[in-house]
Amino acid sequence: MVHAPPRPPAGAPPVRINLYSDTQTRPTRAMKEAMMAAEVGDEQFGDDPTVTALCDRMAALMGKEAAVFLPSGTMCNVIAIRTHCRHGDEVLAHETSHILSSEGGTHASLTGVQIHPLQGEYGLFTEATLRAAIRPRTRYAPPQRLLEVEQTANIGGGVIWPQAQLDAVVAVAREQGWATHMDGARLMNAVVASGIPAAEMVAGFDSVWLDFTKGLGAPLGAVLCGSADFVDQAWHWKQRLGGSMRQAGICAAACIHALDHHVERLAEDHANAKALARGLRQIPGIVVQEPDTNLVFFDPREAGMAPDALVAALRAEGVQISALGGRVRACLHLDVTEAMVEESLGLIRRILAR
Amino acid sequence: MVHAPPRPPAGAPPVRINLYSDTQTRPTRAMKEAMMAAEVGDEQFGDDPTVTALCDRMAALMGKEAAVFLPSGTMCNVIAIRTHCRHGDEVLAHETSHILSSEGGTHASLTGVQIHPLQGEYGLFTEATLRAAIRPRTRYAPPQRLLEVEQTANIGGGVIWPQAQLDAVVAVAREQGWATHMDGARLMNAVVASGIPAAEMVAGFDSVWLDFTKGLGAPLGAVLCGSADFVDQAWHWKQRLGGSMRQAGICAAACIHALDHHVERLAEDHANAKALARGLRQIPGIVVQEPDTNLVFFDPREAGMAPDALVAALRAEGVQISALGGRVRACLHLDVTEAMVEESLGLIRRILAR
Amino acid sequence: MVHAPPRPPAGAPPVRINLYSDTQTRPTRAMKEAMMAAEVGDEQFGDDPTVTALCDRMAALMGKEAAVFLPSGTMCNVIAIRTHCRHGDEVLAHETSHILSSEGGTHASLTGVQIHPLQGEYGLFTEATLRAAIRPRTRYAPPQRLLEVEQTANIGGGVIWPQAQLDAVVAVAREQGWATHMDGARLMNAVVASGIPAAEMVAGFDSVWLDFTKGLGAPLGAVLCGSADFVDQAWHWKQRLGGSMRQAGICAAACIHALDHHVERLAEDHANAKALARGLRQIPGIVVQEPDTNLVFFDPREAGMAPDALVAALRAEGVQISALGGRVRACLHLDVTEAMVEESLGLIRRILAR
Amino acid sequence: MVHAPPRPPAGAPPVRINLYSDTQTRPTRAMKEAMMAAEVGDEQFGDDPTVTALCDRMAALMGKEAAVFLPSGTMCNVIAIRTHCRHGDEVLAHETSHILSSEGGTHASLTGVQIHPLQGEYGLFTEATLRAAIRPRTRYAPPQRLLEVEQTANIGGGVIWPQAQLDAVVAVAREQGWATHMDGARLMNAVVASGIPAAEMVAGFDSVWLDFTKGLGAPLGAVLCGSADFVDQAWHWKQRLGGSMRQAGICAAACIHALDHHVERLAEDHANAKALARGLRQIPGIVVQEPDTNLVFFDPREAGMAPDALVAALRAEGVQISALGGRVRACLHLDVTEAMVEESLGLIRRILAR
Repeated sequence: MVHAPPRPPAGAPPVRINLYSDTQTRPTRAMKEAMMAAEVGDEQFGDDPTVTALCDRMAALMGKEAAVFLPSGTMCNVIAIRTHCRHGDEVLAHETSHILSSEGGTHASLTGVQIHPLQGEYGLFTEATLRAAIRPRTRYAPPQRLLEVEQTANIGGGVIWPQAQLDAVVAVAREQGWATHMDGARLMNAVVASGIPAAEMVAGFDSVWLDFTKGLGAPLGAVLCGSADFVDQAWHWKQRLGGSMRQAGICAAACIHALDHHVERLAEDHANAKALARGLRQIPGIVVQEPDTNLVFFDPREAGMAPDALVAALRAEGVQISALGGRVRACLHLDVTEAMVEESLGLIRRILAR
Repeated sequence: MVHAPPRPPAGAPPVRINLYSDTQTRPTRAMKEAMMAAEVGDEQFGDDPTVTALCDRMAALMGKEAAVFLPSGTMCNVIAIRTHCRHGDEVLAHETSHILSSEGGTHASLTGVQIHPLQGEYGLFTEATLRAAIRPRTRYAPPQRLLEVEQTANIGGGVIWPQAQLDAVVAVAREQGWATHMDGARLMNAVVASGIPAAEMVAGFDSVWLDFTKGLGAPLGAVLCGSADFVDQAWHWKQRLGGSMRQAGICAAACIHALDHHVERLAEDHANAKALARGLRQIPGIVVQEPDTNLVFFDPREAGMAPDALVAALRAEGVQISALGGRVRACLHLDVTEAMVEESLGLIRRILAR
Repeated sequence: MVHAPPRPPAGAPPVRINLYSDTQTRPTRAMKEAMMAAEVGDEQFGDDPTVTALCDRMAALMGKEAAVFLPSGTMCNVIAIRTHCRHGDEVLAHETSHILSSEGGTHASLTGVQIHPLQGEYGLFTEATLRAAIRPRTRYAPPQRLLEVEQTANIGGGVIWPQAQLDAVVAVAREQGWATHMDGARLMNAVVASGIPAAEMVAGFDSVWLDFTKGLGAPLGAVLCGSADFVDQAWHWKQRLGGSMRQAGICAAACIHALDHHVERLAEDHANAKALARGLRQIPGIVVQEPDTNLVFFDPREAGMAPDALVAALRAEGVQISALGGRVRACLHLDVTEAMVEESLGLIRRILAR
Repeated sequence: MVHAPPRPPAGAPPVRINLYSDTQTRPTRAMKEAMMAAEVGDEQFGDDPTVTALCDRMAALMGKEAAVFLPSGTMCNVIAIRTHCRHGDEVLAHETSHILSSEGGTHASLTGVQIHPLQGEYGLFTEATLRAAIRPRTRYAPPQRLLEVEQTANIGGGVIWPQAQLDAVVAVAREQGWATHMDGARLMNAVVASGIPAAEMVAGFDSVWLDFTKGLGAPLGAVLCGSADFVDQAWHWKQRLGGSMRQAGICAAACIHALDHHVERLAEDHANAKALARGLRQIPGIVVQEPDTNLVFFDPREAGMAPDALVAALRAEGVQISALGGRVRACLHLDVTEAMVEESLGLIRRILAR
């Protein structure tokens, strides 16, 4: 079973503090009550009023004409790329982007595109890097069709694209006649932390999606937004991929609840991230990237411990955390309190002191 | 918006009786309570105990080694075919099968297979028909790799495959070295109506799936079963298609509830189907196919009305029903009572008498 | 080695009379001299003057804007379908068409389309059959995008489409907004036999190709014609499929020679086909389809011999012929003389008399 | 017509000296005589004796079980990758490799693989770089299946892989269970220059192909070698791609002639390359990469001229040469004599002195 995820070591205590991922947030009681109360219908016939309400609200929030509810963020990326591109086209994206590293090779196998990996610090790339990747329009080169950007840049450290830099790369895409797509899995973290309204932030993008299962705390679902024609075509792919659901309003209700109650509170996660970074920086030898949002990446090697070893030692204490790209990643979210941050810092200090 | 489903006519009354599809059943209060009480985790990490419990139970019910929870039945078909076949292979299936008619061309576009359409009455085909479709193994012909069967055969009239006929086509597949896959969207209807245990009925199939959103009444989800190795590979495609979810135990809990409470009661739907067929047969000119399970197909043309016209006339009275393949299809399910069947019969009589 | 073609039986004499296929014609001395004299260049840079001359001539002959030289007819079909369609589209074609039976499942695996098989005698289908196959434009059905026609219809018996029937099916395609593609592998046989000029015959088709390796006798190559924009896109797929060649003018010269010297003489093959059919019909029990062009299909079973057995018996006498679709197919071409037809008839009579 | 190759400027003189590419070599008179004399048959039936002889000879030369003749080197890459991999797999190759830069995006669109671009000087990568690219075997990462190496490395400067470095990366592949494929477009240049026999050089590779249209001077064709089972599967893809030909022995005869007469003489091209490099190095400001084989890359910018400008100036004097990856590339081959090298050097000196 080579593909199965790693199991916790035998004898490991239950997880008390989950810094592993904001995807692992559990629905709150209030969210579950909203789910139970939802009016539902047949989603794939356009007859589920709660799904319709969520899509309308998301389209308005993102400043787009239309939206479609999907079971996951990965499906949003698959469908958006399939809709924007034809087989054999090239997509330009950062070399650490989710579509390259974490979707199982789906874009070659299902969407038929080649992804050109752009380099740059913190998961971002510059206008100059993008310009250098423009191919001649010949029979030999794949046609370049789409610019893809991840906001926030996960492996880059949960970093927010400076708006001017984002506008500059979008301008290159416009000039080249490329479509633009934003993987906005953690877009609302960028919105809350920057104070820039979502619609303004994504104005240059033909399509954008938001994941409700990360900091927003819903059990499943993501919403992909774009023009009415784009969403109409996206629906055809939703059908083909098996993403059409039935009484999905039960799940959409959790997303509406999240928009009402879990957006502004992302600021608490950001404050906790800054507190964690501050505490880590006081431990000799730990190199910490200053967090923009809810992710804290740090390198414990000069403090005498490899990332994997620290992850294992914390797991033995009931703290789940991950190693990613050669560093340790801590993720703050609604199941992690200020007190848990303090406790985690204490544990890290103790482990390194051994 | 060519792809959007048809909207009800302006001024149409709300739907009081839904004979349209068992996919439109609403979750019951008890089912919703089970959902709220579910213990959940991160489904794509194998950490959701309710999803795990559902998969274990389904594997046992079907007599297979393993199972995987997916957002829809269409995704079960896509993943099963992708896992059994390589690009350029041929699948043998009935010409009215769901994979040919209702999945938006997904198998050419996503799974890369050619589907050879077999003919035969009631959505079934014979051993002889299957044998006649065997291709020579040359460089010119697509390699034949998979036999696909739909149980019950929807467009065929909700018909149950006679077990001997099913065993005979499976024997051809075995002899030819083909894999076998059952689209068991309404498998439990066949099990309840025939009295043959599920594991016995599907023993000859390498993979089989069950839809929980049809007669079983769950809001979303289907479970695909097969060998441990098949399910491990299927998981890779689940990831690529965007079918991996997070706290999906909320939805899986509805499916477990359905297995506990909504299987035996399918017999009521079958009884209602027989009552409806009996009533229709008494209306002069209506030609009715005797129902095996919960679907009733009838042709009202000799009673003086085209199928589409009857559908529209019933919709104007608050009864939703559909025309499919040149006939009218009525679908019985847990939201349709015996009284509703009587009322529908009365309405049809009145409409035809006008 | 399951894919390898069948080998001749051990001890079989060399083939003296080849009725197997017009694809097996050998280049004549005059054709080879034309090849040697050809001026060549880099074909994939558009710098081969002989290839350019062939393409210009073919575009004019077919009444299209442009043309592209390709290594085979199968590649013409792959590229035309890829260029006209998007992944997940549906193509409508006869159930015995080459694209379904003889291209190894390429259209599902490489072009991503589903081919809907139409029925009809002699490899032809009617306007009514085509209309009955029109799908609703919903999210569930694959979008129908292309009508494909084979001229002459090989497995149908080398039959020529009646021009009115051809115009009628093209009219349906136009009305539905579908593109139209003609597999004209043996188009010039239809042109010579019917007297209808090629450009007039194919006026309703967006793309059409001609095979030079069949009755025209060149060693390799086919030319695909269409609008300038279509051919420009087709070039991109030619590059991707590996169909771009270098000093291909050597082969194109054989095709130009064939246009100059081997078109009108197809009438001799048709006369030989008629002579063969006449002779066969005089043998008691043999059922012969009257030939339109250079293919003669006949059924020897009522004369006491299975098709395969007759093929083997003739091979033992040095005559190569094939069984196809339950009948014997004889193919007349420039390596088969009137005397060889007579000799073959004598052999068949003798074999059946044994 | 965005895809059409660039045309020479109006009024440009004919090309007298072609340093552009060894793909543009013209067949010699002796080669054409060999072509005319070739015995031919139906190649896709395995009945062309000249094609069979070429394949047998190539299999022996490369030390593999079997071989298949194809119209182009690009098709060799497409078929090899398709045969080794399944959709969604990842191939590891240099970031400047032909499969990434020059095949029109074919691998995403037709073979369904993601190509991971490795970095390294001169088109080579080290064992360490390769090891750093190994992905964890999870559901999230594409399965890594194939190592691809280009010998010689074209954009790297026609560089020969040091055998120890080649063996080291192959050892990583073996350890990981990956297949190995060599794009040997200019393999014989490496063989002649290094003195290492071909079979020894490619012993670690499951598949390898040689292009006959480059320095070997044939008009079209390439031969892909591997195990008997690999070649049997490759044939199926050859059929699907439209690469099966008919009397292809005419072209194969040119390849056999090339093996007999044009291999050892590659040493002359290498000597000419060294002479050109020596001459260029004496021009102040020109930075030259020391050639391993028949390609000379140099940078004229410090001599006061941009690569594109020098290309244009030489074209105006009847010398065709190209700019590639920010440098000028000169390609030596059988149509370029020692005197032409001297003349070209003189022209470059004069142009830069203006």
